[in-house]
Amino acid sequence: MADKKKKPTRVNARLPRGFVDRDAADLRAQDAMLATIRRVYETYGFEPVETPMFEYTDALGKFLPDADRPNEGVFSLMDDDEAWMSLRYDLTAPLARYVAENYETLPKPYRSYRVGHVFRNEKPGPGRFRQFMQFDADIVGAPNVSADAEMAMMMADTMEALGIPRGQYVIRVNNRKVLDAVLEAVDLGGEENVGKRLTVLRALDKLDKFGVDGVVALLSVKGRRDESGDHTPGAGLDDEQITTLLNIIGWNEPNSGAKSSANDALTVANLKDALIAAGVSDTGADELNDINSMVAAAGYDDGRVRIDPSVVRGLEYYTGPVFEAELLFDVVNEKGQKVQFGSVGGGGRYDGLVSRFMSQPVPATGFSIGVSRLMTALKNLGRLEAAERPGPVVVTVMDRDRMADYQAMAAKLRAALNTDADGNPTAEPVPVEVFQGNPKQFGKQLQYADRRNAPVVIIQGGDEKAAGKVQVKDLIEGKKIAETIEDNAEWREARAGQELVDEADMVAAVRAILARHAGQA
Amino acid sequence: MADKKKKPTRVNARLPRGFVDRDAADLRAQDAMLATIRRVYETYGFEPVETPMFEYTDALGKFLPDADRPNEGVFSLMDDDEAWMSLRYDLTAPLARYVAENYETLPKPYRSYRVGHVFRNEKPGPGRFRQFMQFDADIVGAPNVSADAEMAMMMADTMEALGIPRGQYVIRVNNRKVLDAVLEAVDLGGEENVGKRLTVLRALDKLDKFGVDGVVALLSVKGRRDESGDHTPGAGLDDEQITTLLNIIGWNEPNSGAKSSANDALTVANLKDALIAAGVSDTGADELNDINSMVAAAGYDDGRVRIDPSVVRGLEYYTGPVFEAELLFDVVNEKGQKVQFGSVGGGGRYDGLVSRFMSQPVPATGFSIGVSRLMTALKNLGRLEAAERPGPVVVTVMDRDRMADYQAMAAKLRAALNTDADGNPTAEPVPVEVFQGNPKQFGKQLQYADRRNAPVVIIQGGDEKAAGKVQVKDLIEGKKIAETIEDNAEWREARAGQELVDEADMVAAVRAILARHAGQA
Repeated sequence: MADKKKKPTRVNARLPRGFVDRDAADLRAQDAMLATIRRVYETYGFEPVETPMFEYTDALGKFLPDADRPNEGVFSLMDDDEAWMSLRYDLTAPLARYVAENYETLPKPYRSYRVGHVFRNEKPGPGRFRQFMQFDADIVGAPNVSADAEMAMMMADTMEALGIPRGQYVIRVNNRKVLDAVLEAVDLGGEENVGKRLTVLRALDKLDKFGVDGVVALLSVKGRRDESGDHTPGAGLDDEQITTLLNIIGWNEPNSGAKSSANDALTVANLKDALIAAGVSDTGADELNDINSMVAAAGYDDGRVRIDPSVVRGLEYYTGPVFEAELLFDVVNEKGQKVQFGSVGGGGRYDGLVSRFMSQPVPATGFSIGVSRLMTALKNLGRLEAAERPGPVVVTVMDRDRMADYQAMAAKLRAALNTDADGNPTAEPVPVEVFQGNPKQFGKQLQYADRRNAPVVIIQGGDEKAAGKVQVKDLIEGKKIAETIEDNAEWREARAGQELVDEADMVAAVRAILARHAGQA
Repeated sequence: MADKKKKPTRVNARLPRGFVDRDAADLRAQDAMLATIRRVYETYGFEPVETPMFEYTDALGKFLPDADRPNEGVFSLMDDDEAWMSLRYDLTAPLARYVAENYETLPKPYRSYRVGHVFRNEKPGPGRFRQFMQFDADIVGAPNVSADAEMAMMMADTMEALGIPRGQYVIRVNNRKVLDAVLEAVDLGGEENVGKRLTVLRALDKLDKFGVDGVVALLSVKGRRDESGDHTPGAGLDDEQITTLLNIIGWNEPNSGAKSSANDALTVANLKDALIAAGVSDTGADELNDINSMVAAAGYDDGRVRIDPSVVRGLEYYTGPVFEAELLFDVVNEKGQKVQFGSVGGGGRYDGLVSRFMSQPVPATGFSIGVSRLMTALKNLGRLEAAERPGPVVVTVMDRDRMADYQAMAAKLRAALNTDADGNPTAEPVPVEVFQGNPKQFGKQLQYADRRNAPVVIIQGGDEKAAGKVQVKDLIEGKKIAETIEDNAEWREARAGQELVDEADMVAAVRAILARHAGQA
C-alpha cells in the first residue's frame, strides 16, 4: 500500500548495543556443541523443559550480583493490568517458579535441563552481551551434598565430551556456608550487615579479574580506582579483618588444576580448624569434606574437580555448595594481555529459591553453562566442529522463459539426491536450487555458485535442450576459469570441468561428482 | 544471606497471561518437527541465520495487521540512550534489517531460514499466545515470480514431509497487486484511502472466521457486532462497491483443495477479464498465470498449490504474490463447533522492506510457519512423532553412608551403556542416575523409578555388598508388586522380576533387560 511517489525516510540498519546476529557457520557449530552437552545431561537422567522469556518481576526476584538498585540489570515493562513483567536474566529463577507451580505433578527429585536466551540490561562490553544463551541442569528436591558432587562431576564430564583436554579445565567447588562463617568471623554476621556482606563477597569474586591487591583495595576503606578513573567504594574492613578473612579462605594459593585430592583433604582440614579457631560454624567445611570424598571415590580427584575455598558465585540465592567451571589455558584479551580463559559456567545449591513460592522447604542444586563463552573457548582450542557444509547444486538459467523446466530439473535432482535406494531420507541433506536472481548475466550466476561453494552447476541452453542434453559442470575443477567469464558466448567456448550428458543421465553424473568430492574430504 | 528469622512474603508462582511452559514430551516432539522442516529448507539451498529478540523500533517498522495505533501489538521499551527498542513481532522485519546491514558480504540471491520466538503484545486467547515460535524461509534478491512459485511449492513439500496427507492441505496463492487493482476498481485508490484500503483488506481476511455475511457487514456502513457485544466499525462501502469487489475476487467459491490447475487457469483468465473490464491493472493476474504455469509444470497442480484470488495476508509489507498454507481437515473449536483447521502459515513478496534501509531496490519473497499451530495440527492428525523415551536406570540408595559407592556404580553403568564396542557414543543416550532424594523410605525410591518409567533399578544393601553382589530388578515385570511395598523389610521378601548377580556382571545384566524391552517396543 506504500505510495511510490512519497519517498520514505531512510531507516538506519543497525542493532541496539549488546545484541548480535549469528551466521550459518556459527549456528551449526553451536548446534553441534549443544547436542553434545544435551547428550551428557540426558545420560544423567535430565529431561528438557522450557519456560517463556517473560516472568512476573516478583517471581524472578532480585538476585543479580551487580544490581544494587531494584530492577537494575533487568529488562522490565508494565503489563496492561499494571503488573510488572521482566525478561528472565537466568534460567534458575524461572525454574523455581515452574517447579512451585507444578509441584504436585513433577517427579521428585526433578531432574531438568533448559537451554535458552537470557537478558541483562547492562552496559555491553567485549564478550559481554545483553542477550546470551545459557544451558542449565538442575536437580530440585535433592537435599544432600551427594547431588552437588554429582553436578560438579557432570560438569567435568561435559567439558570432556566437548573435547577440552583433562588438565585444561577444573571444576572448583566451595560452599556458601564457609563464606558465611568467614564473614561472621570478621564480625559481619547479623541482619544489619547484609549489604556489607554482599560488598565483601563481590570483592572476593573479583580475584581473577583484579588480583590480590585489587581485592584488598576493594575490601579496605579506600576502594579501587580502575583505568578509566571510575572509583568503586571499598567495603571498609580494617587490616585485621582483611587478614583473618584471607587467611581462613587461603585463597592466595594459585588457581591450578594440578593438586591432588589429598591436598584438597588437607585444604578442607585446615579450613575446618581455622573456622573452629575463629569460633564459627564448620558445617561448610564438613560438607566440602563429604564432596571431596565422593569426588575421590568416583576418580574425579585427578584435577577434574577441586575444592577451593576462594570460589565465590555472585548470585545471591546460593545457600550451600557452589561450583565454577574454569578453563586453564591462556588467551590474549582485548588489551593484548595473556590471561587465563577463566569461567565458562557454574552453579550451586539454592535451597531457598523454590520455597519462596511454597509453604515447604524444597532443596535444589544446579549449574549453568554460558554457551557463547564456551563456544569462544572451543574456538580457541580448535575443538569447535568444522561446520563447513557442501554448497548447493545450482541449476542455472540460460533462457528465462524456460524457468519451469529449470525448476523441474532442480526438483528431480533434489528428490533423487536426498533419498536412498529404499526411498528413505539420506543422512545429510544435499541442497539443490534454481538460480533465482536476475539471470541476465550468466557470469553472475557462476559467481553466485562459487560464492555458495556449489560443487556442481547444471546448464541447459537452447542447443542442449534441442539435443536432449544438459551440461554438468564440476565447479571445483572449473573454478578458476569461471572467474574470468562474463557472458554466455564466452562461456560456451570454455568448457573445462564440464561434461555434456543425456538428460536421463543428469542425476547419475551429479552423483558421480558429489561422490568424488566426498571422497576427497 | 537470607535471615531465617524473617519470614518472607510468599510469592505467587504463576506466569503472565499469554505465556506458557513446555514439557519434555512437547519439546522433543517439537524438535523432531523442526528437524523435518529444517531438512526441507536445506534441500532447497537455504542456510540458517539468527537475529536477536530486540531491534530498534524504527527498524521493525509498523506492519502488523491489527495495529492501528503506533506500537500497538509490540513490546517496546526505551533504552538508556532514549532510543526505543522492541521485541521482534515476526522474523521478516529483522531479516530485512540484517540483509541491509550485511548487504555487501551476503550472496545474492540470499537464501536463509530462521526459527525463533516472536512476541505480540495483544490480548491472549485460545491458541493465541504473546510469545510463539515461527520458522521462516526467504529469498532476498529474487526479482521474479519464479521465486514465489518455488516458495509455494517448498511450503507444500514441507507439509508432505511432516506427514500431512495430500488433499488435507493446500497452499493458496494470490497477489497483492490483484487486491490493489480491485480496490482501485471500487474507487479506493490514492493516498487519501490508505486507511480505508487497510480496513477493507482486514475485512476480506476474515472470511474463514466470520463467513460471507460477516465480511459483507464489515465492508458496509453498519459494521459487525460479535457475540460478546463488541462492535467493529464497517469500512463504509456501498452495495455496488461490495458487489464489484466480491465479483472480481470470486471468493464465494468454496475453499477446497480438489480443483485442478485447468480450473485455476480459468479462474485467472476470468480474473484478468474482470480487471480489464473494470479498467484497472491486470499485472497481478498475469503474475498469477505465470505462477500457475510453473506449478503445473512441476506437477504441484494436483491440489497442492492453488490460485485463489480471495487470499489476503494481513501484513502490510507485501507487494506481490502472497500465499497461505491451509489445513483442510475439520477440528472442533473451543465453542464445540466443527471448523476447518485453517492456516498454519503463509507469506509473500515484500519488495519494499529491505530497501527501506537502502538506496537501491531489493526484491524478496518468503514465508513463515506458525510452529505451535502446526504442532497442534499434527497432534490432531496423529502425526506427531511419539516422543516417549525410555526412563533412566536408577541406582537406589539402601545405605546413605555408601553414596559414593552408588555414584560409582551409576558412573560405571552410564559409561558402559552409552558407548559401543569401539568406544564411540551410542545413537540414543541411555540415562543412568543415582536417587538423589531423601533415601529414608525405600518405597519412595521405587515409586520415583516408576514415575520416571525406569526400566531397571539397581539395589545393593549391606548383605549384597558383603557378598559382592547386586540386585538388578526389571521394573516393568516388577511394577505391580513395587506399588504395594512400603519399607525395606517388606521389599526383601518380595523379589519378583529381580536377579542377584555378581558386581562384575551388573552391566551385562542391565544390558540384557534393556535389550529385552527394546525388542518388545
